[in-house]
Amino acid sequence: MTVTRIAVDLGVLPVALDLGGTFVFALSGAAAAVKHRLDVFGALVLSLVAASSGGIARDVLIGAVPPAALEDWRYLAVSLLAGTIVLHWHSALERLRNPVQLFDGVGLALFAVSGAHKALAFHLGPLPAALLGMLSGIGGGMVRDLLVAKIPTVLRAEIYAVAALAGAAVVVIGNALGVPSAVATTAGALLCFGLRFMALRRAWRLPVAGEQEPSADAAKTHWKA
Amino acid sequence: MTVTRIAVDLGVLPVALDLGGTFVFALSGAAAAVKHRLDVFGALVLSLVAASSGGIARDVLIGAVPPAALEDWRYLAVSLLAGTIVLHWHSALERLRNPVQLFDGVGLALFAVSGAHKALAFHLGPLPAALLGMLSGIGGGMVRDLLVAKIPTVLRAEIYAVAALAGAAVVVIGNALGVPSAVATTAGALLCFGLRFMALRRAWRLPVAGEQEPSADAAKTHWKA
Amino acid sequence: MTVTRIAVDLGVLPVALDLGGTFVFALSGAAAAVKHRLDVFGALVLSLVAASSGGIARDVLIGAVPPAALEDWRYLAVSLLAGTIVLHWHSALERLRNPVQLFDGVGLALFAVSGAHKALAFHLGPLPAALLGMLSGIGGGMVRDLLVAKIPTVLRAEIYAVAALAGAAVVVIGNALGVPSAVATTAGALLCFGLRFMALRRAWRLPVAGEQEPSADAAKTHWKA
Repeated sequence: MTVTRIAVDLGVLPVALDLGGTFVFALSGAAAAVKHRLDVFGALVLSLVAASSGGIARDVLIGAVPPAALEDWRYLAVSLLAGTIVLHWHSALERLRNPVQLFDGVGLALFAVSGAHKALAFHLGPLPAALLGMLSGIGGGMVRDLLVAKIPTVLRAEIYAVAALAGAAVVVIGNALGVPSAVATTAGALLCFGLRFMALRRAWRLPVAGEQEPSADAAKTHWKA
Repeated sequence: MTVTRIAVDLGVLPVALDLGGTFVFALSGAAAAVKHRLDVFGALVLSLVAASSGGIARDVLIGAVPPAALEDWRYLAVSLLAGTIVLHWHSALERLRNPVQLFDGVGLALFAVSGAHKALAFHLGPLPAALLGMLSGIGGGMVRDLLVAKIPTVLRAEIYAVAALAGAAVVVIGNALGVPSAVATTAGALLCFGLRFMALRRAWRLPVAGEQEPSADAAKTHWKA
Repeated sequence: MTVTRIAVDLGVLPVALDLGGTFVFALSGAAAAVKHRLDVFGALVLSLVAASSGGIARDVLIGAVPPAALEDWRYLAVSLLAGTIVLHWHSALERLRNPVQLFDGVGLALFAVSGAHKALAFHLGPLPAALLGMLSGIGGGMVRDLLVAKIPTVLRAEIYAVAALAGAAVVVIGNALGVPSAVATTAGALLCFGLRFMALRRAWRLPVAGEQEPSADAAKTHWKA
């Protein structure tokens, strides 16, 4: 295990992104707990779970066990800090239009790029690395929503898994082209967050599965009526 | 990792079964998405998750990371193909009595036997191999149902986990007796699908947990009334 | 794999605790199935899942694959035995005030200490070992509740994850101080179960996340009205 760890030097950047993603996902978990009126411990557990599920899934899938979120105390500290902040200043947070979705979008972007980075550092190919980035991004929110018995945002949302995949793909492609890591990472995170943010603000919608586009016939019927 | 892969030559059969199971579980996921009126991306995500969860769980549990469903592009391609088919021809599918359950039954059978095969190839004993076959079979449908906030079929259904276990057991026993792999696999898959199909068509029911069989007393009361 | 197993001699104690936890979590799963009117197979599947999820998650996270719950036939036997007991004597069980919660509390305590033990045996540090103990404890109940589409106890309950963490911490601290294993284990399990039991019986409640304590102002308003 020590050998693996020496061989895979992740560098400062992915860990910083990972901790940042952990922080904002923990904010989103605690904000969801306030919304569902959980008690204080329930809120801390939910923020911890939302913050660490994506990263733990990623680490298990690439064989990096025990996962960083369990082994490195900073992940726990950052989660508890975020949970405490929400519980103390929730009234300020409520002035934001939709705090769960906002933090969720930032976390999605940070985890998508850090997940792709870590997968590349573990010598995965381009496709698995991009998929793992996507999975790290969507994992935390998926488990958070499942635990409060809600159909996860990733299934309901306009642009979500696709935004994470796009952000992770930028990191993977940048790596293949030899673009400096910091540049590709910033571009990937901005693309992911930008897509998600625009989808939320402009209420971009995709056709519902199994429904026809409003056809000429439907338009005519509408006109006559 | 390369060493493991050379040592564990799965052969063509289990991979073909795996891809077949992936395809039909993706069909079931997309059909469930149409039923729950998810949008197009949500439907593709749900079909991807339904198609890959069982196999990913199996691979993580036997230590075959990164899992085939992430590493091999054909799994992704087959899932997206199945999702696209459902989204385009869903009205034809609706003529089937219950497309989610039908595809689910075929996927259950294919994953149960391919899971047992892969576990044996990784030198697991007979009991863990049969359990892993069962788990690969039931995993995808379980996660699909959880994500649309439904109590999973595996808990509600007449004969489901037991059918998967029976199919996987045939592969394990066939392997122990030296029966040719293709024969045991076909027999196992047919047994699993047959059991599940009969349970659905004939509405086989088991007594509800904690209820008495209609007793002599109950019959008498009924008679008098 | 064989090498790992020789190097990590778990001893009799953790395995006994693990089997005990498996037994009572299986009881809680089958009791939940009776409550939700699942059929007999559904009840056995739910008791199996509740009994093994926490331990499987723990084993995957420390890299001990295939997990003990799949490889060792005693786990399966103990789960099925517990399920069968509940299905046959459920009317006796119903005289208990809340059988699901009672068995759940015992399982929480047993898995929290056995999880911490196993993590230490795999040379994890104190923090990851305590977190893994907590996770083993809460995992089974979390998955059980998710499968019957209920917000998990761990989010709703007064003292739950904290009780598991406290029990696991006693084992980790005891190990660091050189306290005999059996003493630290017993103390940890009793602390965890005691905390959980008192929280249930005395209906200990924590403030709901995001609500103010009844303030002086609120009291005045109340007084005037």
